[in-house]
Amino acid sequence: MALQIAINTYHTRVDEHLRRSLSHNSIEPQLQNAMRYALFNGGKRVRPLLVYLVNQLLNGEIDKADAPASAIECIHSYSLVHDDLPAMDDDELRRGQPTCHIAFDEATAILAGDALQCFAFELLTETPSSAEIRLQMISVLAKASGNRGMVAGQAFDLCHVDKPLTLIQLEQMHRHKTGALINAAIELGYHSAECQDVAIKTALIAYGDAIGLAFQVKDDILDIESDTQTLGKPQGSDLDQNKPTYPALLGMDGAKSKLEQLHQAALDALLPFSTQGKLLRELADYIVTRSY
Amino acid sequence: MALQIAINTYHTRVDEHLRRSLSHNSIEPQLQNAMRYALFNGGKRVRPLLVYLVNQLLNGEIDKADAPASAIECIHSYSLVHDDLPAMDDDELRRGQPTCHIAFDEATAILAGDALQCFAFELLTETPSSAEIRLQMISVLAKASGNRGMVAGQAFDLCHVDKPLTLIQLEQMHRHKTGALINAAIELGYHSAECQDVAIKTALIAYGDAIGLAFQVKDDILDIESDTQTLGKPQGSDLDQNKPTYPALLGMDGAKSKLEQLHQAALDALLPFSTQGKLLRELADYIVTRSY
Repeated sequence: MALQIAINTYHTRVDEHLRRSLSHNSIEPQLQNAMRYALFNGGKRVRPLLVYLVNQLLNGEIDKADAPASAIECIHSYSLVHDDLPAMDDDELRRGQPTCHIAFDEATAILAGDALQCFAFELLTETPSSAEIRLQMISVLAKASGNRGMVAGQAFDLCHVDKPLTLIQLEQMHRHKTGALINAAIELGYHSAECQDVAIKTALIAYGDAIGLAFQVKDDILDIESDTQTLGKPQGSDLDQNKPTYPALLGMDGAKSKLEQLHQAALDALLPFSTQGKLLRELADYIVTRSY
Repeated sequence: MALQIAINTYHTRVDEHLRRSLSHNSIEPQLQNAMRYALFNGGKRVRPLLVYLVNQLLNGEIDKADAPASAIECIHSYSLVHDDLPAMDDDELRRGQPTCHIAFDEATAILAGDALQCFAFELLTETPSSAEIRLQMISVLAKASGNRGMVAGQAFDLCHVDKPLTLIQLEQMHRHKTGALINAAIELGYHSAECQDVAIKTALIAYGDAIGLAFQVKDDILDIESDTQTLGKPQGSDLDQNKPTYPALLGMDGAKSKLEQLHQAALDALLPFSTQGKLLRELADYIVTRSY
């Protein structure tokens, strides 16, 4: 319950900051409209939530978490817009709404994604932290987003369609594709709180590693279990060894045991924070127990 | 001649810096290959040249110009990769070579462009200037690249295909689409030299405004004059009032007079630098007298 309140509070907060930041004029209003469409499409704001939760865990000033929370959501949103393009996943719907290139057009979607990406870095230049900290944040976000982070994970994924992956490759892919931004959110929260305790950072990154991967394992499990319900097939009967998922590589029992290990690793990483880690603990619980 | 030596010297210099910076490993080598392909495709390195020329004009340490010169070329390169995509200009050749999405594939081209963009900001976090100056550079580049700069200009252009533009709109479009990055190059050079003289900055920006637009006017003129040569049509006979070019809006004489005004404005802006402005003066001369 407390977690749900935090989710709603920070969702509203980051949305307000994003709206305010994007309120200036552009010579091409359609571009701004597409950027807003991409940003305000019902996303759950998980990455901003992590920025705020870590900022508050470390007794940071919350105002200093607004820009990094907004910035990481801009990166996440742009990546979804580009992922949905015909040349990529070719998705026409996202969360029940037309994807950006369907609502506008492909060229506008490409440009809106491009503009959202550099807007993320612009936001970080303006956050009320010291110059050194702003630079650290920009460095964290740039490294997590690019050719050693998220985009590399997406490229790896695209280059391995219909090819079998080893467990190590699957994990590597997810650590880049989604894990890098999850950990960047945590690092941004850490920097926004002006924390300089490396042990704390290490613990939080271990937590981020665990929940990032747990989220993916749970997704893979839910994909199959919702098939079971919907199609009446025996659980796991349609495991395709060429489809890189945890159940495909580990079996359903193995995947569930992996999920539980990751859950435990997340909780263990939070031990140094004792009761103050409550919300992050609840978030880890939610990730592994959610039913959709 | 001196300008040609500077062009070659700084071209080599920025290429070396880019190669060194991009030498790390990625989990997806094809992404790195596509990034390199996009960067090393025979571009003239005009924007890096401006960074270096301004840095040297203001007696800056040249090492501090390497990262901004590389960064702005990354932005320029990514924009060309995305511009060439089927949903945008749908170009299969650039400078006689297959465009990135032809040499690789569309998805890889989108991702390589995305990765080049954030790589630009990553490079700026690592340049050996003070934290404050690095932040100023990141701010300059982010603002020039995004929804109030280059991308807005591209979006405006796309939204006005086959629609008539006024002279003011045409100028606005070019000031965003290409002028913003030209001026960003100049500002990056200024910051790399640790200059804090606003009058100097204003003069250099006036120079940048003039050469940026002059380049475009000259391009429009060359388009028609090369038609004259190639097709034997009378000069300006194929002016299409719906095609937004300077000759279309001003007539050929008007466009040439506009070009001469801009040339003069560029030279006037350099007066405060007396003999030291020689290379920038020669660059302005080159832009308006070039024959291709």
